[in-house]
Amino acid sequence: MPHKETVVVGGGVVGLSVAWRLAGSGPVVVVDPAPAAGASWVAGGMLAPVTESWPGEEALLELGLASLDRWPEFAARLGVGLGTDGTVVAALDAADAAQLDVLADHLASLGRAVERLPGRALRQVEPALGPSVRSGLLVPGDLAVDNRELLRALLDACRRAGVRFDKRRASTVEPGVVRLVDGDEIRCGTTVIAAGAWSAGLHRALAGLVRPVKGEILRLRVRPGVLAPRHTVRALVESRHVYLVPRAGDELVLGATQYEAGFDEEVTVGGVRDLLADAERVVPGLAEYGLTETAAGLRAGSRDNLPLVGRLEPGVLVAAGHHRNGLLLAPITAEAVHALVTGCPPPGAVLAADPARFIPEGGHR
Amino acid sequence: MPHKETVVVGGGVVGLSVAWRLAGSGPVVVVDPAPAAGASWVAGGMLAPVTESWPGEEALLELGLASLDRWPEFAARLGVGLGTDGTVVAALDAADAAQLDVLADHLASLGRAVERLPGRALRQVEPALGPSVRSGLLVPGDLAVDNRELLRALLDACRRAGVRFDKRRASTVEPGVVRLVDGDEIRCGTTVIAAGAWSAGLHRALAGLVRPVKGEILRLRVRPGVLAPRHTVRALVESRHVYLVPRAGDELVLGATQYEAGFDEEVTVGGVRDLLADAERVVPGLAEYGLTETAAGLRAGSRDNLPLVGRLEPGVLVAAGHHRNGLLLAPITAEAVHALVTGCPPPGAVLAADPARFIPEGGHR
Repeated sequence: MPHKETVVVGGGVVGLSVAWRLAGSGPVVVVDPAPAAGASWVAGGMLAPVTESWPGEEALLELGLASLDRWPEFAARLGVGLGTDGTVVAALDAADAAQLDVLADHLASLGRAVERLPGRALRQVEPALGPSVRSGLLVPGDLAVDNRELLRALLDACRRAGVRFDKRRASTVEPGVVRLVDGDEIRCGTTVIAAGAWSAGLHRALAGLVRPVKGEILRLRVRPGVLAPRHTVRALVESRHVYLVPRAGDELVLGATQYEAGFDEEVTVGGVRDLLADAERVVPGLAEYGLTETAAGLRAGSRDNLPLVGRLEPGVLVAAGHHRNGLLLAPITAEAVHALVTGCPPPGAVLAADPARFIPEGGHR
Repeated sequence: MPHKETVVVGGGVVGLSVAWRLAGSGPVVVVDPAPAAGASWVAGGMLAPVTESWPGEEALLELGLASLDRWPEFAARLGVGLGTDGTVVAALDAADAAQLDVLADHLASLGRAVERLPGRALRQVEPALGPSVRSGLLVPGDLAVDNRELLRALLDACRRAGVRFDKRRASTVEPGVVRLVDGDEIRCGTTVIAAGAWSAGLHRALAGLVRPVKGEILRLRVRPGVLAPRHTVRALVESRHVYLVPRAGDELVLGATQYEAGFDEEVTVGGVRDLLADAERVVPGLAEYGLTETAAGLRAGSRDNLPLVGRLEPGVLVAAGHHRNGLLLAPITAEAVHALVTGCPPPGAVLAADPARFIPEGGHR
């Protein structure tokens, strides 16, 4: 009897990374009507566990840092470049500045000192910042990746590694079988549910554990002669988060709104208006940029902001709920899934992401 | 010797309307790398000579009204629907209201009384208007057309009438010959220059007479449960013009910025920001709409806001410089060009658009 196929349900950055990693150990098929799309395609591409961290989320920071360590090799193997200019975090009003102080104190308490700077000094580091910026932080270690270049590279790498793509939609997953909405089914060995916000509907143990968190994002073009940020810029504008990620060339990604609005993937006037208004207060040259794309995607939110990476029951694994951190956490997620499938211990930082934390005693695994 | 082809340079709404009209009198070719695109594709589709009028532009109003009279038959022959709910013009601040008073007085002096209403009464007519609207006008006679439906219908009508399309780019026009940028040339009978903002570069007599006026426009989707305007809404917001044109279905077109910035067709952050901010003050429900498209186009501005429709020299005609009124003026422009080509007198209202007004004595025609 031939080695049974492993099915990865979902072809976003997590699913593709998992499939690529598993392809060395046997036949793999990715089931997704539109691989390399969705939230991964819309994303900003920041690999920023430190600036994303917050008191109480130490396990997520540890997981993020462990994955960040793996990014240089991951990117090099895929032939994808990394932005290494680091992040400038800017605060606009007094409350925003106070929030950055909380973040800086928190990071200091973890031994990760970041540099606090008043607005004037921050503008010397990043001249594209406007006069409304009151204070900020320099975070040199963050990386950035062009998410679309990454997805194209992952698709290529999967194809070269022999991964098969099935462009039908999965409806439910049970041990040894993935049912499709067309009524067909795929008999398989292991299944990995990596369907982001749609994962909750695929397996009963995930019901209520993953939810869609809508994000809108804009792609801008820096027009000749206009000042543009060289660093990734994150900002707090009256407590709203906004970020600008420079790409190689003249592209800039501006994000991101957060709405809990179900499976709504439409860009709204209000979302675009807020992003533009907030970002322009941070980087006044913005009005002169070209607006080349508006897009929305659905992040997969979990109950505690940690992803769900682990076994649901024999033969069924989950790698979902990565929320704002799908790109950052893709390498360590792929490594963890590979370890679980091959019977090895996963990296220690991934243990906090075990879905067992939500599954009541007696729920079978 | 066979009847020589007529060449229409430019496949926007004016060029296609002219080609369709001329096709009954002999062979016609439209030269355009991308017919049914450009400013015509981006346009809002208001057919609104009255609300566009202004003291000193009586000849343009007369021309617009003469073309508006032709629209119902033009649309019916093309099988295209017309919006007949009329226009609501809204003023936000005191200066905006004063400007509407000038318009209303001007129209009254021409015997075209429009109804002036305070904000509250205007909101009864159009409940989507917000509380910031101070006063306004009702203009029942304006029409609206879906510009994209129109362009598709014109392309079909041209093809059915035997019009040939040459998707190369013209470089210069002389009597009996259209030179192409690929170095080739088309020998022809009459040539009609209908290349909008690009017309000035095609014939020496047009140099400096037509210029690009950039306009940005957004397409919105009214989401279920959100209040949306039923009428075309034009507004003055701190002296900036903004309009919202409802389409059949759930689409709404929001326009339009005006920049004199050369041949720049990129949507800018500042343009989108201004359109959204201004329109939201007029129609507060806007923030809840979907934003489905951003686009920019180049109107063809003339020195006096009247188009250039007439003969430049024997065998060479021009139909360009229609600025904000290309859709409105397409039927009468086509009729005038047809009359000139067949040796008949053009409609009287078109005489004011004769390019002779700009061509010095002794310039040959």
